Amino acid sequence: MLDLIKPLLVRNASKIVLAVADGLGGLPVERGGPTELEAARTPNLDGLVRDNVCGLSLPVRPGITPGSGPGHLGLFGYDPLQHQIGRGVLEALGIDFDLGPDDVAARGNFCTVDAEGRITDRRAGRIASEPARAVVARLRQIQIPGAAVFVEHVREYRFVLVLRGDPAGAEVADTDPGREGERPLKPKAQNPESEPTARLIERFVTEAAALLKDEPQANMVTLRGIARRPPIPSMTEVYGLNAAALAVYPMYRGLARLVGMTILDPGQSWAEQVTALQRHWRDFDFFFLHYKYTDAAGEDGDFRRKVQKIEEFDAEFARIVELGPDVLIVTGDHSTPARLRSHSWHPVPVLLASAACRPDLVESFGERPCLAGGLGQLEAKYLLPLALAHASRLNKFGA
Amino acid sequence: MLDLIKPLLVRNASKIVLAVADGLGGLPVERGGPTELEAARTPNLDGLVRDNVCGLSLPVRPGITPGSGPGHLGLFGYDPLQHQIGRGVLEALGIDFDLGPDDVAARGNFCTVDAEGRITDRRAGRIASEPARAVVARLRQIQIPGAAVFVEHVREYRFVLVLRGDPAGAEVADTDPGREGERPLKPKAQNPESEPTARLIERFVTEAAALLKDEPQANMVTLRGIARRPPIPSMTEVYGLNAAALAVYPMYRGLARLVGMTILDPGQSWAEQVTALQRHWRDFDFFFLHYKYTDAAGEDGDFRRKVQKIEEFDAEFARIVELGPDVLIVTGDHSTPARLRSHSWHPVPVLLASAACRPDLVESFGERPCLAGGLGQLEAKYLLPLALAHASRLNKFGA
Repeated sequence: MLDLIKPLLVRNASKIVLAVADGLGGLPVERGGPTELEAARTPNLDGLVRDNVCGLSLPVRPGITPGSGPGHLGLFGYDPLQHQIGRGVLEALGIDFDLGPDDVAARGNFCTVDAEGRITDRRAGRIASEPARAVVARLRQIQIPGAAVFVEHVREYRFVLVLRGDPAGAEVADTDPGREGERPLKPKAQNPESEPTARLIERFVTEAAALLKDEPQANMVTLRGIARRPPIPSMTEVYGLNAAALAVYPMYRGLARLVGMTILDPGQSWAEQVTALQRHWRDFDFFFLHYKYTDAAGEDGDFRRKVQKIEEFDAEFARIVELGPDVLIVTGDHSTPARLRSHSWHPVPVLLASAACRPDLVESFGERPCLAGGLGQLEAKYLLPLALAHASRLNKFGA
Repeated sequence: MLDLIKPLLVRNASKIVLAVADGLGGLPVERGGPTELEAARTPNLDGLVRDNVCGLSLPVRPGITPGSGPGHLGLFGYDPLQHQIGRGVLEALGIDFDLGPDDVAARGNFCTVDAEGRITDRRAGRIASEPARAVVARLRQIQIPGAAVFVEHVREYRFVLVLRGDPAGAEVADTDPGREGERPLKPKAQNPESEPTARLIERFVTEAAALLKDEPQANMVTLRGIARRPPIPSMTEVYGLNAAALAVYPMYRGLARLVGMTILDPGQSWAEQVTALQRHWRDFDFFFLHYKYTDAAGEDGDFRRKVQKIEEFDAEFARIVELGPDVLIVTGDHSTPARLRSHSWHPVPVLLASAACRPDLVESFGERPCLAGGLGQLEAKYLLPLALAHASRLNKFGA
């Protein structure tokens, strides 16, 4: 798809807005009842639906429940199966760490080991963040010849390790044996190119063990999801877009950074994000707005709060529409039904508003109404090409 | 898709039932009239439709009419374009022959040849099964150094040849020249690895010609669709399912065996199949029930009988639902509209019932109502991943 689109690109002054309500899709709590989105009063979105076109977005493939990484890559126009993001990278993005292309990131866990070095608690008794930060401070003393070492606390027993050295492979297996009663594994390279990286990690682990041996709460570390940033071509390169992100939560800024977006200061709330959008309106072609609270309510199993968060999401669309985007897409990166308290595989309602769209007969924004939408059910990765088309940014393919 | 799913698998105690009414999809006889399924009274299926989710299944790709092999492989979660089954293999499966992984199978035809060896009747005057069985008995005398030879009668002029020898290529061209007035072709290897197989087959054909030269009704044989079982990974391997099949007709048992299902004694009727399902309910995760009579009625062009057979199919669903499957999928392997008297490419109605499904607005089971279904139109190969998702058997993809 990227190869198909690149030669067709046209640059113009059009503006595209992608507004993502995280985990938007839902499920009825009772048979025959409404979903969260169907229960919410969304006058602004319903108004957009009536004049424009709707459908349902499949984040990855039917039946596949996406994490935030694949969910967003799809919306940014990349096939999430072609571009997979390692756990360590996502963890680094989640704390706003600006990963370089050669950096190797790992998710670290503090743990406890007995006198023989066998793991007694894989999560160091879920050590509180305060003492864990002190342990992180000790690990920051570690120096390794040949690489800069970054250790960043995440939360409780979790931290991020980043090694910045000469480029080498990053295919190194987890050191976490996955269960208690066993010793942490030696970092093992999965191929010869990754040997230098495995040795750097081994050195880090050895030094960490020595530094922490008298720590009562966390005397050892394990590492998982060792990975490098995937080499994703930027949105400028493949879609010709000067793109910016307005996201309050670091992980979504990080995902936007991965595809080359400029990260803008979003303020602290949805209303402030929209104000920031107004402020930067002239500076970019494409804006990604990320709204987290729908997903958080879904994960908490709180149907009512999710309904309310959808209504708060809706409330700012008058200001967005006022800016006059050539294309406005409103959707989610996946479903998070309050009933399931987790991400799910269910398709996500999507609305595309543009003067060039072919309106359908849908009258309100919701899972069931969208089934009759003009976009049908389509993989999320096609939404960005559709946005470009509606923004007159794509030439005809073939003569 | 298989590579994507395998690392996401979760094992649990959930039960999945796939009930296949062969050739379920149909067409109206008159413009504006109902299809077979729409004409049938199906209170049980309609009840399931109202609380659950529907759609239409594309067996292979739009416009492609599948045979039974591709039709079922899709439903079993395999891309039928990736896993193709040779004619000889399907013929052997159709008589319940338990093909080994190295066996080479061919579909055989009795024919008649003149004094110069030119074919005078490619189907041996459609010789009756009784005398044909006697000819098969003669062919069973053939012994070939280096391979065990199995000759099994199918019906009238058709038989199956299986050679069980050292593993070698099975790419050997048909010996049937495709028209009368020509001599049977020499078995020709399509690549060097298949030379040993071509020589074994040549030896069989030479011996057969000698043995049959005085048979008045069938003095020669031709062979077609020479093939080995495709190397399909089992449903246990790729989907983590302990799967069983309840199918009255041998070919469907054979297809189930190809993907590693356990073949259970189905009894003789649909009601007995469901009784067998009850009996084995605790022993497996996944049950494939195959109902043949809808397809047979469609092939006979008998709209009314197909309607009646759909009603008989419907009648047993109360007993299936009573077992409490976590996921129940009801569909067909393809359409067989009575009006066309043959398989067709038209999408097949599908119903997925599960507590985790997102209900749509469909109220009865039929081709037109299913167009509004929440599953949309999707390739058959996605139904099994969807079943796993609804059965909580798939972890999230990516973090």
